[in-house]
Amino acid sequence: MNIQELKEIVCQENLNLVKYGLVTLTWGNVGQLTEAGDAFVIKPSGVPYETMTPADMVVVDLNGKVVEGSNRPSSDTPTYVELYRFFLQYSQENNAKLLRGIVHTHSSCAVAWAQARREIPCFGTTHADHFYGSVPLTRPLTEEEINAGYEVNTGRVIIERFKQDKLNPVEIPAVLAAGHGPFAWGKDGHDAVKNAVALEAVAVMARDTLAINPNAPDLEPWVLQKHYNRKHGPNAYYGQR
Amino acid sequence: MNIQELKEIVCQENLNLVKYGLVTLTWGNVGQLTEAGDAFVIKPSGVPYETMTPADMVVVDLNGKVVEGSNRPSSDTPTYVELYRFFLQYSQENNAKLLRGIVHTHSSCAVAWAQARREIPCFGTTHADHFYGSVPLTRPLTEEEINAGYEVNTGRVIIERFKQDKLNPVEIPAVLAAGHGPFAWGKDGHDAVKNAVALEAVAVMARDTLAINPNAPDLEPWVLQKHYNRKHGPNAYYGQR
Amino acid sequence: MNIQELKEIVCQENLNLVKYGLVTLTWGNVGQLTEAGDAFVIKPSGVPYETMTPADMVVVDLNGKVVEGSNRPSSDTPTYVELYRFFLQYSQENNAKLLRGIVHTHSSCAVAWAQARREIPCFGTTHADHFYGSVPLTRPLTEEEINAGYEVNTGRVIIERFKQDKLNPVEIPAVLAAGHGPFAWGKDGHDAVKNAVALEAVAVMARDTLAINPNAPDLEPWVLQKHYNRKHGPNAYYGQR
Amino acid sequence: MNIQELKEIVCQENLNLVKYGLVTLTWGNVGQLTEAGDAFVIKPSGVPYETMTPADMVVVDLNGKVVEGSNRPSSDTPTYVELYRFFLQYSQENNAKLLRGIVHTHSSCAVAWAQARREIPCFGTTHADHFYGSVPLTRPLTEEEINAGYEVNTGRVIIERFKQDKLNPVEIPAVLAAGHGPFAWGKDGHDAVKNAVALEAVAVMARDTLAINPNAPDLEPWVLQKHYNRKHGPNAYYGQR
Repeated sequence: MNIQELKEIVCQENLNLVKYGLVTLTWGNVGQLTEAGDAFVIKPSGVPYETMTPADMVVVDLNGKVVEGSNRPSSDTPTYVELYRFFLQYSQENNAKLLRGIVHTHSSCAVAWAQARREIPCFGTTHADHFYGSVPLTRPLTEEEINAGYEVNTGRVIIERFKQDKLNPVEIPAVLAAGHGPFAWGKDGHDAVKNAVALEAVAVMARDTLAINPNAPDLEPWVLQKHYNRKHGPNAYYGQR
Repeated sequence: MNIQELKEIVCQENLNLVKYGLVTLTWGNVGQLTEAGDAFVIKPSGVPYETMTPADMVVVDLNGKVVEGSNRPSSDTPTYVELYRFFLQYSQENNAKLLRGIVHTHSSCAVAWAQARREIPCFGTTHADHFYGSVPLTRPLTEEEINAGYEVNTGRVIIERFKQDKLNPVEIPAVLAAGHGPFAWGKDGHDAVKNAVALEAVAVMARDTLAINPNAPDLEPWVLQKHYNRKHGPNAYYGQR
Repeated sequence: MNIQELKEIVCQENLNLVKYGLVTLTWGNVGQLTEAGDAFVIKPSGVPYETMTPADMVVVDLNGKVVEGSNRPSSDTPTYVELYRFFLQYSQENNAKLLRGIVHTHSSCAVAWAQARREIPCFGTTHADHFYGSVPLTRPLTEEEINAGYEVNTGRVIIERFKQDKLNPVEIPAVLAAGHGPFAWGKDGHDAVKNAVALEAVAVMARDTLAINPNAPDLEPWVLQKHYNRKHGPNAYYGQR
Repeated sequence: MNIQELKEIVCQENLNLVKYGLVTLTWGNVGQLTEAGDAFVIKPSGVPYETMTPADMVVVDLNGKVVEGSNRPSSDTPTYVELYRFFLQYSQENNAKLLRGIVHTHSSCAVAWAQARREIPCFGTTHADHFYGSVPLTRPLTEEEINAGYEVNTGRVIIERFKQDKLNPVEIPAVLAAGHGPFAWGKDGHDAVKNAVALEAVAVMARDTLAINPNAPDLEPWVLQKHYNRKHGPNAYYGQR
C-alpha cells in the first residue's frame, strides 16, 4: 500500500466516524501507521467532514514532524506519536500484533464515563466481545504536565495506565482520558473505528445498566474469557475463516 | 415455500434488524425453520449487512450440521438448535403454534436489563400487547457449562427458565440471557423481528418508568389479560381479519 | 371539505406520526371529525404505515358504527367516540373551539410517565407553550370496567379526569391514560399531531429535568400564564396573523 | 455583504438548526447583525422550516422596529435587541470581538438543565473547548417583570447574570434562561449555531456524567484554561491558519 492509498483509507475511516454517529461538528479523528511503520497519516485539524478529501490528510513521522501535506495535522497528533511509539515497542517486546489504527472521538456516552472518572465495567458479553476487562481510565494531568506539553502528556498518562496494571493494548483496545474522552485503536484504522463504535455502544449499555440496577455485577470471569476468546483467541470461531 | 424463498425471507428479516435500529456493526441474526421443520436458515457469522445476499444464508439441521451454504453459520447456531427443539416439542405436547422464527440481537436497552440481571416488569399496555407478563431472565451460566459448550448451554438455560415457571413461549416470545442480551421469537422470522422491536421499545419505556418513579406498580392483571387477549386471544379483535 | 378530502388529510396525518418519530410498528392513530360533526375518519386497525392509502381510512359515526370503508377501524375507536361526544358537549356548553382532531400513540417517554403513574409537571416554557398546566393522568380502570368495555371506559376515565378538576380540554390538549399512554387532540388532525409531538418532547425534557434535579420547581404561574397566552390567548402574538 | 446576502445566510443557519437536530416543530431561531451593526436579520415567528426562504426573513433595528419584511419577526425579537445592545457595548468597552450571531432553541437537554435550574458545570474538555467555565443560569423573572415586558426582561436578566459575575460573553457564548431554555451566540450566525450544537452536546454529556457519578468533579482549572486557549486564545493552534 502506497501513501496515496493510505490517505484514501484514512479519509474514508474519518468519514465512517460520522456515519456511525460518533462525531459532532469536527470532534474526532482517525490515523493509521504506514506499512514501514515510520510515519502515520492523520486527519487535518478542525476541517469539516463535508468537504474533506484524501488530499487533505497529513503525513507525520514518529517525531511528530509533518513530512507531507499542506494542512496542520490534528491537534491530537503528539498523543498519536506517543501511542504509536508505545504500540511499536509493545509489539516488538511481546511479539504481538502491531496496532496501526488509532481513533479519538468525543462520542457522547464514552465522554460521560471519562468525565465521571469511572472505568467502564465489563457488565456483559457485548463488552467482552471487544474489550478483555474494564475500559481503563487515566489519571488526570497535573498543572505541570499541562504546561510542559498537554498532548504529549495525554499520551504518556495513557501509556502509564497500561503499564501500571500490565494491561495488554491488543486485548483492551481503548482507554478513557480522565475529564476528556475516549481513544480506541486496532490493527488498522477500520478496526480502530469498529472498536470506537463498540466502546460507545457499551458505554450506553453500562450507563443504562447502572440506572436499572446500581449494584449490577460484573460479568462472570469465565464468560468474559469465553466471549473474548471465541472472537479473538487462537481458536476463534466467530466470523468467516 | 422452497429453500431459496426461505433464504430470501431470512436475508430480508436480517436487514430489517438494521432498518429498525436493533443492530450495531454485525451484532444480530435471524433464523427461520423450514416448512418441514427439520432444518433452519440462519445468517452467516460476522458478515456485514451492507453486502449480505440470500446466497450467503446457511441451512443447518436440528443436529447443528450445516446442510447447505459455504459460509459458517452464526456462532449462536447451537443456541438456535436447542430453542427449535424446545419449540417443536412444546408445539406437539401443547398443540400450540409452532415458533419458526428466532432473533438474537444486542439491542441497547434490552441488553442493559440483561446486564442489570432484572426481568423487565410489565409496566403497561405496550408490553402487554406483546408479552403476557414479565420478560424472563435466565440464570447465569456456570464455569462448567461454559467449558462444556457455551452456546448449547445458553439455549438450555433459556429452556430451563421457561420450564421452571411453566412459562408459555407462545405467550412470552422473548427472554433475556443474563449478562448477555435478548432472544425473541415468533411464528416466522418476520413475527420474531416484530417481537424484538417491541422488546427493545418496552425495555426503553421500562427504564424511563423506573427513572420517573422507582416504585412504579406493575400493570393491573386484568389490563394485562385484556390487552394480550384482544391482540392474541381466541376472540382477538385487533388488526384486520 | 368532502369525505374524500378528509380521508386524505387523516391518512397524511397518520403518516406524519411516523415522520415525527412517534410511532413504533403500527402503534398509533389519528382521527378527525367531519365538518358536520356527526362522524369521524380514523386509521384502520393494525395496518402498516408503509402501504396505507386514503382509501384504507374508515368512517365511523358517533355511535361507533362504521358508515364507510371495508377495513376494521382502530381498536381505539370506542375511546374516540367517547372523546368526540365530550368535545362536542364541551364546545356547546362553553362556546369553546370544537376539538376535531385526536391522536393516540405509544410515544416512548409519554408512555413512561403514564406507566410511572405521574402527571407531567409544567417545568418550563416549552410545556407552557402547549399545555396550560400539568398533563393530567387518569385513574386506572377497575376489573369491572375492563370487562364491561375496555375502550369505552378508557374514554370515560379521561373525561372523568377532566370533569373532576374542571380542566379545559382546549387549554390542556392531552392526557395520560394510566399504565397505557398518551392521547392528544386539537382543532384538527394536524393540530392534534403537533400537540402529540410537543407532548413527547416535554415528556423527555421533564424526565431529564428530574434526573438533573429531583427537586426541580414547577414553572412560576405567571410565566405559565404568559407563555400560554402569548400563543393561544385572545391577544396572542406568536406566529403570523 | 448586502442585506440580501445576510438574509440568505440567516435563512441557511435557521435550516442548520434543523439539520443538527436542535429544533422540534418551529421552536428555534437565528439572527445576525448587519455589517453596520444598526439592525439584524431574524427568522419570522412560527413559520415552518420546510417552506422558509430568505425572502421570509425580517430586518429589525436596535429599537425593535421592523425595517424590512412583511412577516412578524420571531416573538423573541425584544430579547435579541437587548442582547445586541449589550454585545455592542461590551465590544466597545472591552475592545472585544463583536458578537453578531444569536441563536435561541428549545434543544432538549439544554432545556432540561434550564428547567432543573442548574448551571451546566464544566465536567470536561468538550465543554472547555467552547465555554470557559460553567454555562450560567439566569434568575427567574418576577411577576412584575413578566407584566412589564416578558421578552425584553428575558434579555435583561441574561445581561444581569453576565454583569453580576463579570462574565465575558465572548468566552462564555451561551446562557440558560431559567425555566425556559438556551440562548447561544458567536461572531456570526454560523458560529452561534456551532455553539448551540456544542451546548446541547455538553448538556447531554453532563446529564450522563451525573447519572454515572453524582459526585463527578469539575474539570481541573488548568485543563479548562489549556483547552479553551488552544482553540480561542491569542496563541490558538487548533484548526487551520
